Amino acid sequence: MPAEQISELRKGNRLALSRILSQIEAASPAGERALEELFPYTGQAHKIGITGPPGSGKSTLVNALARNLRDLPEKPKVAIIAVDPTSPFSGGAILGDRVRMLDLQGDKGIFIRSMASRGTLGGLAAQTEMLSQAFDAAGYQYIIIETVGAGQSEVDIVNLAHTTIVVDVPGMGDDIQSIKAGILEIADVLVVNKADHLGADQSVKHLQTMIAMGYRALRYAAGKHMLHETITQKHEEETPTQAWIPPVLKTIASDRKGIQELVDVILKHGAYLKETGLWAEKAQSAITETLRKLIISKLYTQWRQSVPEDALQDIIQQVSQRKCHPHQAIEQLLAYNKTTSN
Amino acid sequence: MPAEQISELRKGNRLALSRILSQIEAASPAGERALEELFPYTGQAHKIGITGPPGSGKSTLVNALARNLRDLPEKPKVAIIAVDPTSPFSGGAILGDRVRMLDLQGDKGIFIRSMASRGTLGGLAAQTEMLSQAFDAAGYQYIIIETVGAGQSEVDIVNLAHTTIVVDVPGMGDDIQSIKAGILEIADVLVVNKADHLGADQSVKHLQTMIAMGYRALRYAAGKHMLHETITQKHEEETPTQAWIPPVLKTIASDRKGIQELVDVILKHGAYLKETGLWAEKAQSAITETLRKLIISKLYTQWRQSVPEDALQDIIQQVSQRKCHPHQAIEQLLAYNKTTSN
Repeated sequence: MPAEQISELRKGNRLALSRILSQIEAASPAGERALEELFPYTGQAHKIGITGPPGSGKSTLVNALARNLRDLPEKPKVAIIAVDPTSPFSGGAILGDRVRMLDLQGDKGIFIRSMASRGTLGGLAAQTEMLSQAFDAAGYQYIIIETVGAGQSEVDIVNLAHTTIVVDVPGMGDDIQSIKAGILEIADVLVVNKADHLGADQSVKHLQTMIAMGYRALRYAAGKHMLHETITQKHEEETPTQAWIPPVLKTIASDRKGIQELVDVILKHGAYLKETGLWAEKAQSAITETLRKLIISKLYTQWRQSVPEDALQDIIQQVSQRKCHPHQAIEQLLAYNKTTSN
Repeated sequence: MPAEQISELRKGNRLALSRILSQIEAASPAGERALEELFPYTGQAHKIGITGPPGSGKSTLVNALARNLRDLPEKPKVAIIAVDPTSPFSGGAILGDRVRMLDLQGDKGIFIRSMASRGTLGGLAAQTEMLSQAFDAAGYQYIIIETVGAGQSEVDIVNLAHTTIVVDVPGMGDDIQSIKAGILEIADVLVVNKADHLGADQSVKHLQTMIAMGYRALRYAAGKHMLHETITQKHEEETPTQAWIPPVLKTIASDRKGIQELVDVILKHGAYLKETGLWAEKAQSAITETLRKLIISKLYTQWRQSVPEDALQDIIQQVSQRKCHPHQAIEQLLAYNKTTSN
C-alpha cells in the first residue's frame, strides 16, 4: 500500500521514510511511483553540500553542524546523506556511520543515510538528488550531502546543493595547490577545520588570497562552460546584482568551535540565494542535470538491449585484434539502435 | 597531409606527435582519422596508472619513475599523461608541469602531456585512452597516467592501465580509512611515499594488513560487478592460476630512493600479466570501456539534436513548477529520439 506509506512519510514516520528511501535506491517500480507522488511536495529544503580532501574531518564537522542546525528556534529536521563515490562496498562508510550514529543517536529529528553503491540508474549524483527529494517531501528542512574525497564525482554531487562548503585543514602537502584551484570554484563557503593546528591562519589567508585573485570569476566562466554540457543553456547571461564572496571560516569541529558561525553563514547564503533569484535557478539546474543523467542512462539501456550479445562480442574481438578501428566499431554498434527504433 | 604526419610520428618526430595529440584532444575529423591510421600499431605499450590522495607527492614520484625507466638497458621512451578531472582550467596542472619540465627537460625520450579539459567526447577516461594510443603507436614503451586526487573519475582513468600504483603517505587524517577501502581494490602496487616521515612503517604494516584481510578478494568481486556495467561480461569466471598480491613499497621520491625497486616491481607485474593472459584481458577491457563511453556520448548527442530547444525548455519549466513529474518528463523527452530515428 504505497499511498499509505506516502502519507506516513509525510506525517514524519521514520520507518516509512526509510522504506521509501530503499525503494528509490533499488530503482524499483514502487520507488519510481513514490518519487512521483512525493514530487509536488519538494522544493522546500535547503540542500548543503560538503566536500574536501580526506583527513579534513568532514564527518565530525557534519555531526556538529547537524546538532547546531537542530538548535535553531524552529527546531528543523535535518537529514544527512553520506556519499562515497570511490567505494562499491559500504565498509568504509559504515565505519564512519557507527561513530556518527553513536554521536547523534537519540535525536529523532536527525536522519542519516549513506550511499556507496555503483552502477545505479543515472549515477550517484542523480541518486543523491532523488533521495533528497524524499527527505524534502518528508519535511526535512536541511539536507546535508557529505562526500568522501574531492574528485570530479564529488563536484557533480555537491553541485546539486544550494550551498556548497569546501573543507580544508592547515598544512596540506605539496600538490594540494592544484586541488584547491579545481575545487575552490565550487565553494560558497570555505572552512579551515582543525583550526588549532599549526598554520591555520596561513591557510585562511591563502584561501582569501586565492578568492581575491579571481577564482570566483573563474567559477562563473566554469558555470557557463558546464551549462553547455547540460540540457538547458538558460540564464547564461544573468549575473547576480550583488556578488557573493565566499567567506573563509575557522572551525574546530571536535570541540564544536566555530560551528554557530558556520550555521549563521549558511542561513545568510540561503537568504542571499532567495533574494537574488539564484535559489530557483539552482533548483532548476539540479532538476535539469538529474534529467540529463537519467536520460543518458535510459538511452544506453535501450541501445544495449537492441544489440545482440554475439554481435557485440564479435565486434569487440575484431577491435581487440586490430581488425577493425574503434570508430568503425561504434558506427556498426550504433546502427543497431536505429534498426530497433523503426 | 595527415599521411605524412603519421609517418613522421612513427619515425619519432615529436612535433608531429604533439600536433596529432592536439587534434585527438580537439576531437577533430583529422584527429579521428589519425586514430584510425595509428590503431593497427597500438597494443605494445605498458600503461602505468598512478593515483593517490593530494599531498602524497605523486608528481615527484612520477618524475623519478620516468627517469629510472629511461635508464633501463633498452632505453625505452616514456610518456607522461597528467590528468586533472577536478579542474576545467589548466592553471593547477600547468604549475605542476613547469616544475616537472624543468626537472626532465633535455631528455628527448620523455614526452609530457597534461589534460584538464571537461566535456570532451566520452569523458576524460576515454580521452586518456585515445592519447595513450597515439603514444603507443609512436613507440613509447611506458605510458604513465597520473591523476590528481583519488575519486571515482580517477579510478575510471587508472582502470585503463595495465599496472595501477596507489600512493599513500604516512600519517593521514581520521577519515582516510574509508578512502583506502575504496581505492585499495584497484591497486596492483602500493607505495608509501615520503617514507622518511614519522609513521611510515606503521602505514606499510597497515596497508599489508588490509591486503591480507581480503581487500584483494573484494577486488575480484568489484571487478565482476563493474563488468556487468560494461558492454562485455566475458572472462567473468576466469581467475588467474597464481594470484598477484600487491606489494607495499617505501619510497622517498624527492631523493630518488626506492624508485629502482618500484621499477623492478612494475616489470615483474608486466611479466605476470603476460604469463597469465591478463595483459590481453586488460587491454580488451580498456577498449570495451572506451567504446562504451564513446557510444554513450554519441547516443546523447543524437538525442539532444532530435529535441527542439523550445520543447526542452518547456518541459524543464513544467518540472521546475511541479506541473509534471521527472519520470513523465523523461518519457516525453525520449519520445523525440524515436520519432527522429524513423
